[in-house]
Amino acid sequence: MSVYDYVLTQTNFVRKDDLNYPFEERGLQFGDGIYEVIRVYNGKYYLINEHVERLYRSAEAVRIELPFTEKEMYSHLDELLNKNNIESDAKVYLQVTRGSAPRDHSFPLNTTANLYAYVQDLPRKMNIMREGVTTITEPDVRWDWCYIKSLNLLPNVMAKQTASEQGCFEAILHKDGEVTECSSSNIYLVREGKVHTHPAKKNILHGCVRMRVEQFCKEESIPFIEEAFRVEDIQYADELFLSSSTAEVTPIIKVDGKPVREGMVGEITRKMQEKYEQDAGIIESASIFAKEV
Amino acid sequence: MSVYDYVLTQTNFVRKDDLNYPFEERGLQFGDGIYEVIRVYNGKYYLINEHVERLYRSAEAVRIELPFTEKEMYSHLDELLNKNNIESDAKVYLQVTRGSAPRDHSFPLNTTANLYAYVQDLPRKMNIMREGVTTITEPDVRWDWCYIKSLNLLPNVMAKQTASEQGCFEAILHKDGEVTECSSSNIYLVREGKVHTHPAKKNILHGCVRMRVEQFCKEESIPFIEEAFRVEDIQYADELFLSSSTAEVTPIIKVDGKPVREGMVGEITRKMQEKYEQDAGIIESASIFAKEV
Repeated sequence: MSVYDYVLTQTNFVRKDDLNYPFEERGLQFGDGIYEVIRVYNGKYYLINEHVERLYRSAEAVRIELPFTEKEMYSHLDELLNKNNIESDAKVYLQVTRGSAPRDHSFPLNTTANLYAYVQDLPRKMNIMREGVTTITEPDVRWDWCYIKSLNLLPNVMAKQTASEQGCFEAILHKDGEVTECSSSNIYLVREGKVHTHPAKKNILHGCVRMRVEQFCKEESIPFIEEAFRVEDIQYADELFLSSSTAEVTPIIKVDGKPVREGMVGEITRKMQEKYEQDAGIIESASIFAKEV
Repeated sequence: MSVYDYVLTQTNFVRKDDLNYPFEERGLQFGDGIYEVIRVYNGKYYLINEHVERLYRSAEAVRIELPFTEKEMYSHLDELLNKNNIESDAKVYLQVTRGSAPRDHSFPLNTTANLYAYVQDLPRKMNIMREGVTTITEPDVRWDWCYIKSLNLLPNVMAKQTASEQGCFEAILHKDGEVTECSSSNIYLVREGKVHTHPAKKNILHGCVRMRVEQFCKEESIPFIEEAFRVEDIQYADELFLSSSTAEVTPIIKVDGKPVREGMVGEITRKMQEKYEQDAGIIESASIFAKEV
């Protein structure tokens, strides 16, 4: 997963080894910053508008003044791919912190935001999308404002690590039994032909792929029901799947050691994957379905 | 508030301008780290054991392996003061992150923690301790594990900023009306000669000065009651005060624009301040009380 050499900053492009952070950085001392991870297929951004718009929403919520206008942001992000000659599947990690200032919880209003964005190879995870992943359930101990895509990710880190050490791909988070999302993805339960997911309130991330899943359901006349389901509802699920920019649409075939739908991937999940590939303009040979024909 | 030149890192002492953080730093990308702020009076640490022990507890809770044994930590922290010739009142900011690794929520187990600690001048805030501070109340939107002194401080930052822009010193945080603590201090309500404060559960920081306040109460036979009080109880408070390593014991004289005890500082608060000064070995001339005599 190599990182490409040219990194976009708030002032210019630098080589990644030349990137330097000042001594007192609010991102480093308070997690006082926001980020996006943007998917690139065949050298082209997917859902770039959704990501950039969310970045600006996050920035507004925490009152970070972004160093670029939205128009400049699009242009710089394009240049980031061009400078690095990206033609394959990749992701862009983009982070903005409030900037550098003597350490104090309250913030000066005149700091200059520190931005950096870099490109990294990201081949599609065909195996897990084809075969599905295993998960565990974990209490959601995160803050109340997870709709802000902030750098305060320690609870997500701890939950993901717990999953990982049990050989699982994700941790399904719940508040007192009510499923919110996963540690780095949104989650959906299918029952009787309907897709259920937590409403896009302040306590979950409003995923860019989640927005597409909602649209895919609409196009296919599949009811998309924004009501939280509970951990104990999972045993009655016909299908369970997750979505994120890096995991796309991925089936969940096991939760806390118990198979979902006897470990088989369901047809609404497959339909979502198919529509995702169409939507992202993924070429036939790379398709999840290509090898099943 | 100048920062002294020598900075302790995990490997050696460096000049502060030479400190450099690697490209992918988990502290910067996830807030994946912990910290302490340790008070120094006349060139000597106050409550150093409490701070170092809490650092190790935080590290254990998030599974960060500290680069030093506790014994080495004390020795390096002493050297930090010596190298910078600290003889006055100051604070040490000490931060440890999980280290650098390609960005992924789950963490490799073999990273080397990045540590840095620096010294900054910190004169005692005599005015606010003598006269008291004003506060606002704000919902506590933080995560459930605030006993870990982590770098995930964005909610604290936002609450403190809101207070600050209303000309107030602190934000009193509450979960559904139940007062937990302030954005960067613990809080105590005095009523009928008893001190009430939120129990040291997982959702508040177990303040080092809070431990001393408990001890001071014990020594003075003042009941120290670890039961949460509610926002609406504040109107019946005889006294209200807060504590932290930088604010010591500070009276609160106003909450959301309404005076506490008609804006006068109460006697239990003064007793706590007096005992704090004794405990910290603060010399007479710098005392809050010196000028009142």
